[in-house]
Amino acid sequence: MAGNIRVTLWNEFKHERSEEPVKKIYPDGMHAAIGRGLTAAGGFDCRLASLDEPEHGLTEAVLAETEVLTWWGHVAHGAVDDAVVQRVRARVLEGMGLIVLHSGHHSKIFKALMGTTCSLRWRDVGEKERFWVVEPGHPIAEGLGESFTLPHEEMYGEPFGIPTPDKVVLISWFQGGDVLRSGCCFERGHGRIFYFSAGHELYPTYHDPAVLRVIANAACWARQRVRLPDHCPQVKAMEPVPPGR
Amino acid sequence: MAGNIRVTLWNEFKHERSEEPVKKIYPDGMHAAIGRGLTAAGGFDCRLASLDEPEHGLTEAVLAETEVLTWWGHVAHGAVDDAVVQRVRARVLEGMGLIVLHSGHHSKIFKALMGTTCSLRWRDVGEKERFWVVEPGHPIAEGLGESFTLPHEEMYGEPFGIPTPDKVVLISWFQGGDVLRSGCCFERGHGRIFYFSAGHELYPTYHDPAVLRVIANAACWARQRVRLPDHCPQVKAMEPVPPGR
Amino acid sequence: MAGNIRVTLWNEFKHERSEEPVKKIYPDGMHAAIGRGLTAAGGFDCRLASLDEPEHGLTEAVLAETEVLTWWGHVAHGAVDDAVVQRVRARVLEGMGLIVLHSGHHSKIFKALMGTTCSLRWRDVGEKERFWVVEPGHPIAEGLGESFTLPHEEMYGEPFGIPTPDKVVLISWFQGGDVLRSGCCFERGHGRIFYFSAGHELYPTYHDPAVLRVIANAACWARQRVRLPDHCPQVKAMEPVPPGR
Amino acid sequence: MAGNIRVTLWNEFKHERSEEPVKKIYPDGMHAAIGRGLTAAGGFDCRLASLDEPEHGLTEAVLAETEVLTWWGHVAHGAVDDAVVQRVRARVLEGMGLIVLHSGHHSKIFKALMGTTCSLRWRDVGEKERFWVVEPGHPIAEGLGESFTLPHEEMYGEPFGIPTPDKVVLISWFQGGDVLRSGCCFERGHGRIFYFSAGHELYPTYHDPAVLRVIANAACWARQRVRLPDHCPQVKAMEPVPPGR
Repeated sequence: MAGNIRVTLWNEFKHERSEEPVKKIYPDGMHAAIGRGLTAAGGFDCRLASLDEPEHGLTEAVLAETEVLTWWGHVAHGAVDDAVVQRVRARVLEGMGLIVLHSGHHSKIFKALMGTTCSLRWRDVGEKERFWVVEPGHPIAEGLGESFTLPHEEMYGEPFGIPTPDKVVLISWFQGGDVLRSGCCFERGHGRIFYFSAGHELYPTYHDPAVLRVIANAACWARQRVRLPDHCPQVKAMEPVPPGR
Repeated sequence: MAGNIRVTLWNEFKHERSEEPVKKIYPDGMHAAIGRGLTAAGGFDCRLASLDEPEHGLTEAVLAETEVLTWWGHVAHGAVDDAVVQRVRARVLEGMGLIVLHSGHHSKIFKALMGTTCSLRWRDVGEKERFWVVEPGHPIAEGLGESFTLPHEEMYGEPFGIPTPDKVVLISWFQGGDVLRSGCCFERGHGRIFYFSAGHELYPTYHDPAVLRVIANAACWARQRVRLPDHCPQVKAMEPVPPGR
Repeated sequence: MAGNIRVTLWNEFKHERSEEPVKKIYPDGMHAAIGRGLTAAGGFDCRLASLDEPEHGLTEAVLAETEVLTWWGHVAHGAVDDAVVQRVRARVLEGMGLIVLHSGHHSKIFKALMGTTCSLRWRDVGEKERFWVVEPGHPIAEGLGESFTLPHEEMYGEPFGIPTPDKVVLISWFQGGDVLRSGCCFERGHGRIFYFSAGHELYPTYHDPAVLRVIANAACWARQRVRLPDHCPQVKAMEPVPPGR
Repeated sequence: MAGNIRVTLWNEFKHERSEEPVKKIYPDGMHAAIGRGLTAAGGFDCRLASLDEPEHGLTEAVLAETEVLTWWGHVAHGAVDDAVVQRVRARVLEGMGLIVLHSGHHSKIFKALMGTTCSLRWRDVGEKERFWVVEPGHPIAEGLGESFTLPHEEMYGEPFGIPTPDKVVLISWFQGGDVLRSGCCFERGHGRIFYFSAGHELYPTYHDPAVLRVIANAACWARQRVRLPDHCPQVKAMEPVPPGR
């Protein structure tokens, strides 16, 4: 585990090219903004990938070199090829880290790994969101203090249809009266998964230092530790078994 | 929750019709044997369903009336229609119970709900298996005593590629030197899922009183408690939000 | 599990006798108010117990007949006899249910069962609290709808120093900007434990129908299922072991 | 987190001084044997401490410098001073790692942190024990392969009265027919706790390379990451709260 962490930042990259207000905030995409944040933090080698590339930019070769993948998708969830989803899923289960962002809660890959609906309640009225650190000793909380706020975010609220997380690191308070388990850790197979709710395309969320810090911390936490492909081997007995049946 | 528990016993029902030794043990199928066990225990209304029926016997109507579904599959996992798998998955997430048996660890439905490989190590040399009760106060352990044994079973051993279970109720000891988390509880959405490893087709496992007791207990535990279909609603703010952005 | 659930409602019963505003809200104690709520709901046999009684009203005989114990304490945590704490702890571990209320988060019994500090952030400015149902299918959430509010409550906020709960059923939103995992399920030994944060003595919280519903639901959920006293037996081998060493 | 990990190896150190067979295997104590293993592995600064020292060798100063504490106790659990137990408990909750070994399952410190009985079934007939790696990607499993065996160990068997572990890394198979969750991870407060069952005093268990590897791996995993003492602060509201009551 020496050297920089190799992160692939995946984005469907649609809103930023088709909607003026989003283009203004993220001229080269949300994934590029996150990448600049990680690069500035140091310790990461970032690569961008998006939906319109061949194989969505997630070839076997790219994934093999990726230690942590971040995922932002929304309007184009359905356009993601099932074969690529299965490829990413297999890589996570054998050890690659995955950070699912905001509307990625309804992505094929997140639902495939969670097994549940991943649905939630939502509204977008530009309200204030405060993220509370529930686990101050968790590496993903490092440097965040007690809480941090975003002046405007889309509200994602409970109930959130996920399996009970291994750890809830962040819980959000919304001005309009809602709450959300907004930073959740899961282990699936040999990979680590972090869901982080921040990042509606209409707000400059991925320019916020605390948000970028969470993603950087999560990328460190989720870094691939082992690579153990799936197998279901037939094995020999290690102790004597008398003839059966 | 009054009245009998309505259980649908699903079986791919292949081995029992094509292999003489299996046919001898289960002339009308393993699902029928399990059904006789539940009926004898009392408190269950059982229905059989299998692969070769239209929609594998798992129509919307059948599933709507089913509180707990048991699943046995092996050679024909790939023949199960993906649409039926998604239908069963949706029913579990909205509240139906699911009991996955033996080689069902690699069924589409179990892998879809777990999100993981569900792989394990295995051999079939007819060895002895002892199931230890790890949670003696759990309702699935009721009446089992400290442990029970099967004289001959297929070995399924760790590592077992499942998410960390909510509760491990049973751990198996094998004569040949292996161990398995052989009785595992999960909650996904509003449904309860129990994986139980017992039931290789070549042994009379589903005639064993302790095995039938586990399945009956699990059916009680997994009984549908609510039915809450998936939705992801847009909602209004409950507290005042000043004009944003 | 036939018949009414036998609940013992324990209260240090200090504030209600020494402070006029509290006396006015709860003339015969918060435990009596909760008891009336349970009795009105039906299905419970309630008994009151408090600090100043011999053995705090929690003799071996009383505990033996108790299926669920509720606990409210605050200024007098230190006055609870350690022997009684150990007795209650042993009863929970062998199967009795326990519902810990509000400031009981710092009671000896809750800290003894959790093993952690159980500390949290707090203030009392009479703010609004909204309890969100995070697990709509959980029996403790039955009949609550999506959320319920109390117009005035003491704020208890994250981080809350508990072990990761088995299930978080309720998360609270506070007007002043905080959040709390306010309804948390734990299993310890063979007993079930529910922490519920509602109930500052200065507000009529235990006259609120939703709050009483939560407690009634929790008492059903936590009802003793088995009674298995602690033992650590020396046992015989069940399989042949060649002479060792 | 630079530099060597500072480990304090605590041992009641009774059997090794009073029983000839034990003295022969561990002339300077089991803790010293473990310390030699860690030192040989590299990356650790080890310190020994035992019951007969003032404050059992666990003064505030020693604990302040300790990042991971290992604990072996058996016949003298009752002789451990409650004040020292509380001091160690507070240090774990604020971030220090703790590795509890073998008969330490019934130590005051382990029971205080778990909240449960920590009882199990046992016998000592010198049987073979095989430890299966259930989580091959977990850092505590690094370098262990699929399983490792000890030719002779005391049997510790299920049911084991612990809270559901965050992760079960090892499950043991015993020749005499039993199983045990023998390597279990817990997080309590900001500290990490690993229970590892190996280490009966009559066998040379702590000279075994695989056993020493587990302890070294666990010490890396449990290394103190933060130090956050307990506090329960009164705080100000961050959002406007209208005058209440």
